[in-house]
Amino acid sequence: MDSIKIFAPATVANVGCGFDVLGFCLDTVGDIMRVSKSTRKGIRITAIDGFDLPLDPKVNIAGVSALALYRSLDLDFGFDIEIQKRIKPGSGIGSSAASAAGSVFAINQLLDKPFSATELVKFALKGESMASQSEHADNLAPALFGGFTLVKSINPLEILKLPYPEELFAVIVHPQIEIKTADARSILPKTVSLEDAVVQWSNLGSLIHGLHTSDYGLIGRSLQDVIVEPRRSQLIPNYNVLKTTALSQGALGTSISGSGPSIFSLCQGEATAKAVASAQHEIMVRSDVPFQTYISKINNEGFKILS
Amino acid sequence: MDSIKIFAPATVANVGCGFDVLGFCLDTVGDIMRVSKSTRKGIRITAIDGFDLPLDPKVNIAGVSALALYRSLDLDFGFDIEIQKRIKPGSGIGSSAASAAGSVFAINQLLDKPFSATELVKFALKGESMASQSEHADNLAPALFGGFTLVKSINPLEILKLPYPEELFAVIVHPQIEIKTADARSILPKTVSLEDAVVQWSNLGSLIHGLHTSDYGLIGRSLQDVIVEPRRSQLIPNYNVLKTTALSQGALGTSISGSGPSIFSLCQGEATAKAVASAQHEIMVRSDVPFQTYISKINNEGFKILS
Repeated sequence: MDSIKIFAPATVANVGCGFDVLGFCLDTVGDIMRVSKSTRKGIRITAIDGFDLPLDPKVNIAGVSALALYRSLDLDFGFDIEIQKRIKPGSGIGSSAASAAGSVFAINQLLDKPFSATELVKFALKGESMASQSEHADNLAPALFGGFTLVKSINPLEILKLPYPEELFAVIVHPQIEIKTADARSILPKTVSLEDAVVQWSNLGSLIHGLHTSDYGLIGRSLQDVIVEPRRSQLIPNYNVLKTTALSQGALGTSISGSGPSIFSLCQGEATAKAVASAQHEIMVRSDVPFQTYISKINNEGFKILS
Repeated sequence: MDSIKIFAPATVANVGCGFDVLGFCLDTVGDIMRVSKSTRKGIRITAIDGFDLPLDPKVNIAGVSALALYRSLDLDFGFDIEIQKRIKPGSGIGSSAASAAGSVFAINQLLDKPFSATELVKFALKGESMASQSEHADNLAPALFGGFTLVKSINPLEILKLPYPEELFAVIVHPQIEIKTADARSILPKTVSLEDAVVQWSNLGSLIHGLHTSDYGLIGRSLQDVIVEPRRSQLIPNYNVLKTTALSQGALGTSISGSGPSIFSLCQGEATAKAVASAQHEIMVRSDVPFQTYISKINNEGFKILS
């Protein structure tokens, strides 16, 4: 195989109570990337469609990851990368992670998979950390492992793949304002009360138990964030009304996707997901803010090989 | 049934990374209680054997819980409670919880179980909170539910029973110095860094995943506490050597039981548990501190009816 075309999925990180550690993978939202072997050594970004991003691999997220992988080997050939960028950078659904993980996923395929998913996350962290000025794998992990993932630790890197119930659907509403990950991080508190921390970890523990036991009600009751959401939601216009609308339409829970501005809801069943998306759509059309909504199953596979 | 004799189990709360929310139930360590119906209305503590504790039910932990349950009903008879106290108060293995939950468990049995385990925890919280000046259910929950439990929330009270792998054994070493729960609480920080909180909740999430998947290695790697143990361990003589010894003997993880001074280790298999207990015994005999060690399976039942 000399060339591969892949679907690079969008992902939802934090997931309410799991700031910096939890994430899940979307199915119908993502970039398309083509990576081809070249007789020329090195990594080249040959084309980017969709958004104005740098072609120089040393300052391009996909390029930085690819270079990290490439330099760990001693190859007498190189790779050309084409990106059809469909996930808007700064949307909060893992745009940088899709690029950072996509290039290394594709190269690993072309090399006949010398690296494990965890090793690919390590390379992808180089690109992701350039984007966010912080090493976090909560988008990379679900993109590369699929499904729901928990980043147990970064040093050493350990990622756990969690089960989840069949009928779980996600709704994403993306108000197209820009919040930079670095800015969304600077609004976070450096310290939290022990009391709030206990609430947060009991919710995260409960969510993981709910995912294991397919307890939709418990999943909903656990999707509560007393630490990050109260602060970051201030950066998102209409946040509270979008959330209460989703819940009133039957969403199990609603919170900020990654560092925002996208908002995710988890729902039991596609019908509820459609009702939530439709009600949120109504609110957004009445606002001045351009937006997109997505409905997606959880994507248990992660990256997909298209050809 | 007019009289019941029960085994009231000792319990391990916090369990390393699950401060205030996680706990498990011991099998071979506990009090014996006898509760009998009486034609006299009210609650009476008729005898306490083992430790010098008040007989007045209004200031006795078992009495306070029993009164909370009793006052919620309109009965024309009462109950007499006898306690063979074997768990030393202040030992850190749920002495107050065994008493607080024991009286209400026994009365509920004599009344033909009008209350759920969760309702019993509510009554027992009245006794427990008198003992510790704080409403926490992390010992009450495993005593009344058995096995491993996660207190999702206190208001409303929601307790989750977690699975765990068959071969899990606990070792307890109890250096018989007194640490009051209230004192152990005052050494805690009011705030923690967001960074430490993230480490703690990724460990708690990982532990719950490890319990669900019977992954002993992951259970061990998750039994890490970056918030409470560094502070409370200072109150426990020989803590570090007892911990490193347990780990060198093959314990999956070792941390403080409840607010201490007891130290628990979780082990895969009884042989490892015995090796850990024996090595810790060696260290304790060389110290001046009187102590006890226990080896116990996880007790999935909680309270046991003896006759």
